[in-house]
Amino acid sequence: MSADNDTAVYQGVTAPVARAAFRQGRVMPTAGIAPGMTQANMIALPADRAWDFLLYAQRNPKACPVLDVIEAGKTTTPLAAGADISRDLPLYRVWRDGALAEEIADASSLWAQHPDLVTFLIGCSFTFETPLQQAGIEIRHISAGCNVPMYRTNRQCRPAGCLQGEMVVSMRPVAADRVADAVAITARYPAVHGAPVHIGEPAALGIRDLAQPDFGDAVQIKPGEIPVFWACGVTPQAAVMASRLPFAISHAPGHMFITDIADSSFHV
Amino acid sequence: MSADNDTAVYQGVTAPVARAAFRQGRVMPTAGIAPGMTQANMIALPADRAWDFLLYAQRNPKACPVLDVIEAGKTTTPLAAGADISRDLPLYRVWRDGALAEEIADASSLWAQHPDLVTFLIGCSFTFETPLQQAGIEIRHISAGCNVPMYRTNRQCRPAGCLQGEMVVSMRPVAADRVADAVAITARYPAVHGAPVHIGEPAALGIRDLAQPDFGDAVQIKPGEIPVFWACGVTPQAAVMASRLPFAISHAPGHMFITDIADSSFHV
Repeated sequence: MSADNDTAVYQGVTAPVARAAFRQGRVMPTAGIAPGMTQANMIALPADRAWDFLLYAQRNPKACPVLDVIEAGKTTTPLAAGADISRDLPLYRVWRDGALAEEIADASSLWAQHPDLVTFLIGCSFTFETPLQQAGIEIRHISAGCNVPMYRTNRQCRPAGCLQGEMVVSMRPVAADRVADAVAITARYPAVHGAPVHIGEPAALGIRDLAQPDFGDAVQIKPGEIPVFWACGVTPQAAVMASRLPFAISHAPGHMFITDIADSSFHV
Repeated sequence: MSADNDTAVYQGVTAPVARAAFRQGRVMPTAGIAPGMTQANMIALPADRAWDFLLYAQRNPKACPVLDVIEAGKTTTPLAAGADISRDLPLYRVWRDGALAEEIADASSLWAQHPDLVTFLIGCSFTFETPLQQAGIEIRHISAGCNVPMYRTNRQCRPAGCLQGEMVVSMRPVAADRVADAVAITARYPAVHGAPVHIGEPAALGIRDLAQPDFGDAVQIKPGEIPVFWACGVTPQAAVMASRLPFAISHAPGHMFITDIADSSFHV
């Protein structure tokens, strides 16, 4: 599924209004929606894999900064009053034996079938897009009304138990004279991926063609701009694939859980 | 046990030399030892409590920032080459049924008796003492050659599974005109407790008498100085007590694990 053409309409709404729209079936990438409110990556795993995942996240904090853990059988979080994690994301991915089985707009029936799911909410780089914009740094995928481009890399994460896999990165083109500002601003948000992991030279990350992202949409890179790469909360999905996990549910890349927590609360 | 009178001799040694001395039986608080190298709090729990603890740490990241998890049966960590976590701390505390049972300088026989221990290394505020000193802010307990004062508070941590308890804080007196600098400097070290949780007004934290710390040593507060409180990695020991855990091993307060990781690597 691609973006709902109502995306522009939803850019000004509050987080609860956006979650209610998603619960009613609206599907759209969430970049630019409910600006100023932190968005989160989501991955839910059976309880017998939860320890391995929490350890994997601890060992790879740049890619997998944990904002909250929802214990087995629960679908609520203190990050968003009244939210139901099984229904309030715009789009879910269902994984079986490490492969993408389907994308669905409501995962509540799967939660009912798997009452032992433990859910992890992981920081998202959308959080620092607001301060980047406030500093006059254009976020190309927001300007273009599309999803952020994401790429699998050749950087292996530190494994934990049954989990291994490569780091996934998001990319934003930044004018060469603003790259240092983008680093300084995002470094102050360590709980939501922090400073870039790589600046320029996509081939050194194992990325062959920026025009063909593994997740999300390609964006234009203008003359004088450098591709800047941040660790991405889709990394757990790469681990689901590489580790051939029997079952998992995640958000669809770019289709995040929108919390009631202000982006600014993650500034250090 | 109190400080070994060799403490001053050891202040200039490297981390591996300090660990070797502790392995040979030297007992001393580690503030000021191997300056510039990160020190860590330690808590080891049976594997069946490990999930609850990792969740407790995730929910209370200011007090319990996890630097590494050593899996069941292992005593090595990538944070310190050649180190053995069961022998290389200067002093251990053994906890039984939530009460302090004994303090010992070598815990390797206990690790042998409990092969399922999972060990957590937690960030320590000693990490940001070097940059505070470099900014000209005196660290009173280092000047005095004693342990940092630590206090139990009336602030409850967010519980997880079998674990609950209050936050423990460390206190450093700071001249009123340098408190803002101390905040700004330590805020840049979120992985090792970060910015203070409380400035002045100890009674509001439930601390009755700064001259009687619950852990460590009292220090002089000079006229014009404000007591500044940081979340402390002794918080897990408070949880062991409050939750009446059957068995645990921890470092003795102020007697930390000294790693090979530079303090500066935690600066964001």
